[in-house]
Amino acid sequence: MKIHIAQLNPIIGDIPGNTQKVLDAIARGKEEGADVILCPELTLCGYPPEDLVYHLSFIDAQENALQQIINEARDIMVVVGLVRRNLYHGEKHLLNSAAIIQDGSIVGFYDKQLLPTYDVFDERRYFEPGTSNRVWPYRGKNIGIVICEDIWQHAGYIEFTRYKRDPIIELVPHKPDVLLNLSASPYQFQKPDVRVKVCAKAARTLGCPVALCCQVGANGQLIFDGASIAVDKEGELIGYGKGFEEDHIFIDLENTHAASLENYDSMHELYSALVLGVKDYFHKCGFSRACLGLSGGIDSALVACIAADALGPTNVLGLIMPSEYSSEHSVVDAKALGMSLGILVEEVSITEPFHAYLDLLQPLFQGAEPDITEENLQARIRGMLLMAISNKKGYIALSTGNKSEIALGYSTLYGDMCGGLGVIGDVKKTMVYDLCRWINREEEIIPHSTIDKPPSAELRPGQIDLDSLPEYGIVDKVLEGYVEDNLSRNEISVKYNIPLEIVIDLVQRIHRNEYKRRQAAPILRVTKKSFGVGRRYPLVQNWV
Amino acid sequence: MKIHIAQLNPIIGDIPGNTQKVLDAIARGKEEGADVILCPELTLCGYPPEDLVYHLSFIDAQENALQQIINEARDIMVVVGLVRRNLYHGEKHLLNSAAIIQDGSIVGFYDKQLLPTYDVFDERRYFEPGTSNRVWPYRGKNIGIVICEDIWQHAGYIEFTRYKRDPIIELVPHKPDVLLNLSASPYQFQKPDVRVKVCAKAARTLGCPVALCCQVGANGQLIFDGASIAVDKEGELIGYGKGFEEDHIFIDLENTHAASLENYDSMHELYSALVLGVKDYFHKCGFSRACLGLSGGIDSALVACIAADALGPTNVLGLIMPSEYSSEHSVVDAKALGMSLGILVEEVSITEPFHAYLDLLQPLFQGAEPDITEENLQARIRGMLLMAISNKKGYIALSTGNKSEIALGYSTLYGDMCGGLGVIGDVKKTMVYDLCRWINREEEIIPHSTIDKPPSAELRPGQIDLDSLPEYGIVDKVLEGYVEDNLSRNEISVKYNIPLEIVIDLVQRIHRNEYKRRQAAPILRVTKKSFGVGRRYPLVQNWV
Repeated sequence: MKIHIAQLNPIIGDIPGNTQKVLDAIARGKEEGADVILCPELTLCGYPPEDLVYHLSFIDAQENALQQIINEARDIMVVVGLVRRNLYHGEKHLLNSAAIIQDGSIVGFYDKQLLPTYDVFDERRYFEPGTSNRVWPYRGKNIGIVICEDIWQHAGYIEFTRYKRDPIIELVPHKPDVLLNLSASPYQFQKPDVRVKVCAKAARTLGCPVALCCQVGANGQLIFDGASIAVDKEGELIGYGKGFEEDHIFIDLENTHAASLENYDSMHELYSALVLGVKDYFHKCGFSRACLGLSGGIDSALVACIAADALGPTNVLGLIMPSEYSSEHSVVDAKALGMSLGILVEEVSITEPFHAYLDLLQPLFQGAEPDITEENLQARIRGMLLMAISNKKGYIALSTGNKSEIALGYSTLYGDMCGGLGVIGDVKKTMVYDLCRWINREEEIIPHSTIDKPPSAELRPGQIDLDSLPEYGIVDKVLEGYVEDNLSRNEISVKYNIPLEIVIDLVQRIHRNEYKRRQAAPILRVTKKSFGVGRRYPLVQNWV
Repeated sequence: MKIHIAQLNPIIGDIPGNTQKVLDAIARGKEEGADVILCPELTLCGYPPEDLVYHLSFIDAQENALQQIINEARDIMVVVGLVRRNLYHGEKHLLNSAAIIQDGSIVGFYDKQLLPTYDVFDERRYFEPGTSNRVWPYRGKNIGIVICEDIWQHAGYIEFTRYKRDPIIELVPHKPDVLLNLSASPYQFQKPDVRVKVCAKAARTLGCPVALCCQVGANGQLIFDGASIAVDKEGELIGYGKGFEEDHIFIDLENTHAASLENYDSMHELYSALVLGVKDYFHKCGFSRACLGLSGGIDSALVACIAADALGPTNVLGLIMPSEYSSEHSVVDAKALGMSLGILVEEVSITEPFHAYLDLLQPLFQGAEPDITEENLQARIRGMLLMAISNKKGYIALSTGNKSEIALGYSTLYGDMCGGLGVIGDVKKTMVYDLCRWINREEEIIPHSTIDKPPSAELRPGQIDLDSLPEYGIVDKVLEGYVEDNLSRNEISVKYNIPLEIVIDLVQRIHRNEYKRRQAAPILRVTKKSFGVGRRYPLVQNWV
């Protein structure tokens, strides 16, 4: 039996387009002599469809698309994901299902049993858990089918939930000859290795091979890395899909070969995720060109590299906007980066509008000392210029704030926070350095002075980040402990040997700046806890 | 038996402060000879605590606070809400519970059974449903206890979910003498009447009185109106709490009197909700003063009235920022409003910075025709000036966009959308008019020319909203149908007799502007579907 793992990149809600991808996969599978085609979770609508599922026409469109697929699925088995109505039982009116089509007929549905409702997942908002386990006989084999989370509980990788059931254990008495899993498992740093372990555990429990088909592509904040997996009954890898692009993997169960995961450099993996995030945001929204402010600093340099790779250098405009506080090397570095990437570069000084505002506001400010107001003014003039160019020329502005800044509110709302997409908003400052050094691994693409100089917002004379923040090594450990690993302040202090008062101060700053993040551009998620949809804290609170 | 309904206004996460409110209520209850004190849902941490519950120290703090309350609850029964650990069963590690304290001892807990997971509610993200029903004997009565949603299913008022169980029916065999309900039911326009019906239905089924204690106060986007309810066993109203403020209601079950809800004018109700929303946002965040742009138009006029009522007129600064396209009457109207409200008013022209930007950008724009870019520039200059004053003087900026504009993206990101709170972002334009006429019911507070003139952004010569939008009567019907009532485009066209192509166009505009709303200020929710936390649509999608 030959399994075709169709690792597809759907657009959310583009039901005709996604259906066409399945039809193309069927044609491809038939050419290659596949017996079974396995598609990702919610193939027809893309994952996650969120509140679109509340529109009945959205559900109807998937049923109609399914009929088209059934018509084309002669002499083959196709397993395709969709949202369908739950007419008869339970709390919720919808199911997260797999339609099982054999030789041009629908033989049944499998409904996802374990519905993740934590972090970025809201499946209990929409779906009723399925309750039945069985196998689907086809061409002499008994085929087990589960959906994404259904396989994770068994390997012990679930946080925040201990499901009452384990669909893998419940399948044991049904003796499947192969287990198929439809997935839409979002990327996080170094996650692909974990998926192999999860499949291996299920394979050893069931004593059969496991094929897991992942959605690939970015949908807003979530990036899906692909990297589908097949393991044999011993849990050894026998096939995998490419990372960060569509792929078609063919596994002949009677003739398997040991495989090993591509030895991805972890920086390469992270960088590829960010490039895909930008590429799909633009492509799926129908945009092609991006602009960003180039400060000569390391954050905008990294975003410029990612944008140039995602969109092509001539589709990227870097705007250099020096003020009287900008060091000369900042402009030089920004221009050098522009040259080495081959992106468009424009320069416009903010000195004049800055002084125009100061004059205008002077009667209202009545001789008050300069403070954060004047710093924010500069950042906001830059944001306005960027948005003016965006509006006039149809560029989408990219926001360049990193996770450490966004955590601590070391950024100006409506200033450097402007933009349609927060490209590196889930990348901590120390990781920004790592990525830039990786980009420069063979030649100097980012000027070394951009990497080597002390970080500075350059909003007042001689300013550096260290004036108002602890060093980023400390900030990032607290961020990792508090935001990503949910440790207490005491635990962080002990684990990283950081004085408790520093930890307490940083944690307070994180919560105090919640209001800025509420109005931040959507952030590409690359860690297990990103600021954004998966982290929900009250805006008004008095806990921390 | 005398029931004391303690309608409290907690601050999320302020466990010492919220505990003190309970201790004060106990003292008050004892003075009044109460037998039982009933507090709102999640009394100790406030509702909704969101991801704060993932911190174990947050749960521990509530357990410690509970001990304090137990110590003070001698010779009385106290029912108080809190989050507690779920150590032994089920998927989730926490429970949304009521602690039942009698005469200085804890006699048990009731765990909420129906966990709303739709709209603004995410309870399945955190909590395991309770499973047990019983009554709690005290002073010769059997007291039934349920939490918020537990009572709603029975009256048939739940959308999006059909719970498998009905805690009211399950209580019937336990023959309660009175049913207590701890609630945190967010306000929506004209909801208080519904709560009476919900209590009446349960009372008639159980044949006993029902007392429902509501949280009051605003927590970010959600406004809780209070208006607690008590009905007798026939379902007739025997007591109610004030709307929009803390209250203590005493019900003597042996000596009840018919009551009737205060005959609230619906505009009065809505206006009070918005005032409370602003007041609590400022008070609970530790701010006292607000600024906003005064355009002479109706939206900023309404927000100025609300802010003046919420914070006191001398804590409100209206900034008049005319451009060359501002009509003379706009400035006159804005000043007249400032005078009639007694708020601070400043004026600063944006003409100079506007031309400074045009000059600066001219080389980059290379003679392109004026378009939306120049309109947005003006809005953004205003936003910047407002934020500069906010930064320098410690005012919090209020955003003045109404729901109709926010729906259609008829607003400038980082311009008129600037601000810490979207005061009327859930009030449709036609309702803005209704509210302003209500404000003027006795005297002209808002200049009549502000109300009577055609709406205009005044960003180019002679511009009026009707140039680019259908009239607001039509826009608002489509909004009501599509966003609030989840009707299909066809259903809306038929129901309101609006040509289908207009409906389709407006629905497309709603979805196309999702990206602006992602960066909008948090909006005070006053309808059953507000833009914000309860409405989750993909940013990148190709459905509409």
